[in-house]
Amino acid sequence: MTAISNRCADMQASPIRKLVPLANAAKARGISVYHLNIGQPDIPTPHGYWKALKDSLPEVLAYGPSQGLPVLREAIATYYSRSGIHIDTDEIIITTGGSEAVFFAFMATCDHGDEVVCFEPFYTNYNGFAAMAGVKLVPITSRCENGFHLPEATEIEAKITDKTRAILICSPNNPTGTVLSPEELQTLSSIVRKHDLFLLSDEVYRDFVFDGGSHLSTLELPEIEDRVVVMDSISKRFSSCGARLGNMISRNKAVMDAALKLGQARLCPPTVAQYGAAWIYHHLSDNYYEGILATYQNRRDVLMEELTGLDGVFLLKPEGAFYATIQLPVKSADRFASWMLTDFQFEGETTMVAPAAGFYATPGLGLDQIRIAFVLSDRKMRKALRILKEGLKAYKD
Amino acid sequence: MTAISNRCADMQASPIRKLVPLANAAKARGISVYHLNIGQPDIPTPHGYWKALKDSLPEVLAYGPSQGLPVLREAIATYYSRSGIHIDTDEIIITTGGSEAVFFAFMATCDHGDEVVCFEPFYTNYNGFAAMAGVKLVPITSRCENGFHLPEATEIEAKITDKTRAILICSPNNPTGTVLSPEELQTLSSIVRKHDLFLLSDEVYRDFVFDGGSHLSTLELPEIEDRVVVMDSISKRFSSCGARLGNMISRNKAVMDAALKLGQARLCPPTVAQYGAAWIYHHLSDNYYEGILATYQNRRDVLMEELTGLDGVFLLKPEGAFYATIQLPVKSADRFASWMLTDFQFEGETTMVAPAAGFYATPGLGLDQIRIAFVLSDRKMRKALRILKEGLKAYKD
Repeated sequence: MTAISNRCADMQASPIRKLVPLANAAKARGISVYHLNIGQPDIPTPHGYWKALKDSLPEVLAYGPSQGLPVLREAIATYYSRSGIHIDTDEIIITTGGSEAVFFAFMATCDHGDEVVCFEPFYTNYNGFAAMAGVKLVPITSRCENGFHLPEATEIEAKITDKTRAILICSPNNPTGTVLSPEELQTLSSIVRKHDLFLLSDEVYRDFVFDGGSHLSTLELPEIEDRVVVMDSISKRFSSCGARLGNMISRNKAVMDAALKLGQARLCPPTVAQYGAAWIYHHLSDNYYEGILATYQNRRDVLMEELTGLDGVFLLKPEGAFYATIQLPVKSADRFASWMLTDFQFEGETTMVAPAAGFYATPGLGLDQIRIAFVLSDRKMRKALRILKEGLKAYKD
Repeated sequence: MTAISNRCADMQASPIRKLVPLANAAKARGISVYHLNIGQPDIPTPHGYWKALKDSLPEVLAYGPSQGLPVLREAIATYYSRSGIHIDTDEIIITTGGSEAVFFAFMATCDHGDEVVCFEPFYTNYNGFAAMAGVKLVPITSRCENGFHLPEATEIEAKITDKTRAILICSPNNPTGTVLSPEELQTLSSIVRKHDLFLLSDEVYRDFVFDGGSHLSTLELPEIEDRVVVMDSISKRFSSCGARLGNMISRNKAVMDAALKLGQARLCPPTVAQYGAAWIYHHLSDNYYEGILATYQNRRDVLMEELTGLDGVFLLKPEGAFYATIQLPVKSADRFASWMLTDFQFEGETTMVAPAAGFYATPGLGLDQIRIAFVLSDRKMRKALRILKEGLKAYKD
């Protein structure tokens, strides 16, 4: 029988989702599962989103423009202007989730066989889009011990070849919670200029920087403004993951022309959701942003309280986003995470986490690490983490 | 400055959308534009869609399953069972528009550099997805003169090389309106078995077959059930293009596993729209399907009435879908279509059509052809076609 493509046969299953069948089986046995495996916030989607959506229901649910509705592109430009960042609406294309922004960024900047340097552990779905785009991700390992900050410039430059087209970063970071400093961004700026590269910057978590810190966007680096491609999304910012709306921003006109051609192929992003998103961008006040930031910071604090100082458990305080990559005293975090779903329960409940090995490109790394998304209420977080600790106590490696 | 990828630089702009700036300029000058260029129906989206959507608004707009909501997959299986076609829900993956189904089908069956045989003129966006997937579309020309039906088997087989992985068809066809006969499908079935290929079948227009004809789905060819990949969409069937919901169907488990991995990378299709779509699939009666079919058939008849017998204009009666590819007495349909927007008006109105050359892969073909989508009311269709005829009279080649 004719076989499927090698590229799909070789694609890894999502480490975030691959244990879902085990979780479903646990639920079928009557066990409640706390989902710390996926960055799915429990925060209500702002009411205005639903109101704007209901107010905009058309008679014919038609295609929209390939680059997105003008009202949403304008709303996003306004959102950035709050941070003092000026973006023209034609430097923004609305994408179907941040996912599509990542894919478009790879496609627009790289040909098949080209390389993109990135820092592992990284958001695992980059692998999927790299496989789709035929791009080779070249990982540089960042270390738990120094809070997953960037290695020295020389170590980064050593990975650049004549096939390298871009460096890919994510700050605040999924899966580590690390926020790159202005100095680190300056280092990257020098490198991309020196080696004539693009800088692909996933800034989906830009509003989530803890402890009074601030986020420097790569859009604020004028010396590389024609090299920067930002990937963004409303999923986390506005707790609207299911809307599938993101955007790609670049001041490089050729990149935007390329993105538009890619966008025309798939016709348009979802139409009605864009009205909801435009409303949120236009109407949410500083109070909203401060409120969700405080919420996630509290959850981060719960995480630190519950897991700090445990024997064999190592994590540094996440600086932003809502993830932590945590070292556990187990040989295989994959087996442990599966076991938590198949063989363990505590008072009828268990906790699901994502094994971190799937966030590394280098085989053998991260085998004893998990990623936790702190996306549940303080009370549930505490419960979920206590169950995790009970699991660690009971688990035989 | 660093350059964008060659593959994006080489991608064609959509022939359906590339004249949009000219249309916008015409509108800015106060001219009304009839859009026969794009398959955007004017038929109202069924009310139940909006009701089901409003009834399902959740507190948190969360990610759904990567393969789509069970309620929608079940509804689609039920829809097929009306035609006597049995599909298991795990043979269906919900995609972000039929667009993504096409991309997934290419990705799952082909590696970079592989070839897919198709019949030109073909839906132009296949080019975009082929470029994204690094797949080479190998065209076989179908001819206006015989209603764009398939050429002889020997002509098809002559294009098959050791790189060929699949044959791609679309029936009822966009952009020609041609419906493949059971005999033509049998021929294709023999060829894909003989050469160990997949058959990728775009059946988006399966409900639109005119003059009492019926549609044989490739899902009804048991001898190649593990070779068939169907791409489908709710866009046209339910006038919900902006929902961005389609699906890919295959009885080949490896293909579905591949599609799920691709699906996991982009997380999920739009969540809330799926409730609306499930409602429609479950609740619309035969009356609905008969009603829209009659509507499009009337429009097709208006098209034939208005354009048959005109000097230098050639078209055969479309058998299905809602498109016709029409030969005009002009040297460059591209220039003519542009001119209709930039230099022509009739009583303050003009008509926009899609130049057909972009639907051909072979350079030099279709230069004197346009594609018309008959997606406006009879009255508007008649008006738009009369304007087109006035334009043809006034145009100097």
